[in-house]
Amino acid sequence: MIDIIHRIGIKSPVAQVYKALTTIEGLAHWWTEEVQGNDKIGGKIVFSFRSPTGELKGQMVMEMQGLNDLKNVRWRCVDGPVEWIGTDITFELSEQDHQTIILFGHRNWREAVEMTSHCSMKWAVFLLSLREYVETGKGRPSPYDLKIDNWN
Amino acid sequence: MIDIIHRIGIKSPVAQVYKALTTIEGLAHWWTEEVQGNDKIGGKIVFSFRSPTGELKGQMVMEMQGLNDLKNVRWRCVDGPVEWIGTDITFELSEQDHQTIILFGHRNWREAVEMTSHCSMKWAVFLLSLREYVETGKGRPSPYDLKIDNWN
Repeated sequence: MIDIIHRIGIKSPVAQVYKALTTIEGLAHWWTEEVQGNDKIGGKIVFSFRSPTGELKGQMVMEMQGLNDLKNVRWRCVDGPVEWIGTDITFELSEQDHQTIILFGHRNWREAVEMTSHCSMKWAVFLLSLREYVETGKGRPSPYDLKIDNWN
Repeated sequence: MIDIIHRIGIKSPVAQVYKALTTIEGLAHWWTEEVQGNDKIGGKIVFSFRSPTGELKGQMVMEMQGLNDLKNVRWRCVDGPVEWIGTDITFELSEQDHQTIILFGHRNWREAVEMTSHCSMKWAVFLLSLREYVETGKGRPSPYDLKIDNWN
């Protein structure tokens, strides 16, 4: 199995980062502004991505599987691009040197395809957006996200 | 074996990107400003990373193994952090939609450790620096690079 993994530090208490990762309102500020669903454990959240002109580009449905201990957040992708279905998104949080350190994973890809490379780069950009949101109040959720290549 | 992989598009001809990846002068504009050695195939290049106050933080020695066809660049890490020695850095270049697309790889890690996560995020930031350099003439090489966590 193939995993995308990243590490980022955010100058903020763990609880603030956890909130940005586990509430509809928080998620809408850094990943995509179009987020709907139930953010409780076991609930499903639909993330929709549109072009700046409003055209629907992609949609992912995640089942919230995180443990409510402020340290582990886990989503299972249950619908979306075929390469994503059945993969897991994980965030492990800890405090070090007055930062919240996130160990991020997008795990269990069946193979490393060109879209995996694209998503790895794109996750890095969205983690920077998450940091900006938590530290300053303003992130860059889709459709205001930094475009990285000819796929978006 | 574990691979870090990313995909980025640069609005510039392949030859310009190739030059930024294969010459001492080009490399000094986006990865680290302290680059010394022989940039010919088979040559070795030493990349030094310092803190903003000048303290040496790390040093990597890469053997240039790229094929001189403007499409493939490959470095073998022959000295540096123990986790890096024997790993390969690869850049595959192609033209799509008036962009040079880079498929980047930092390949053949023996295991996925926390430093792998750190380096994956850091490579994403340096690829954005590479793009900025090629498109605008000014990148963010170390020590002016965007810091991503408590490790740098």
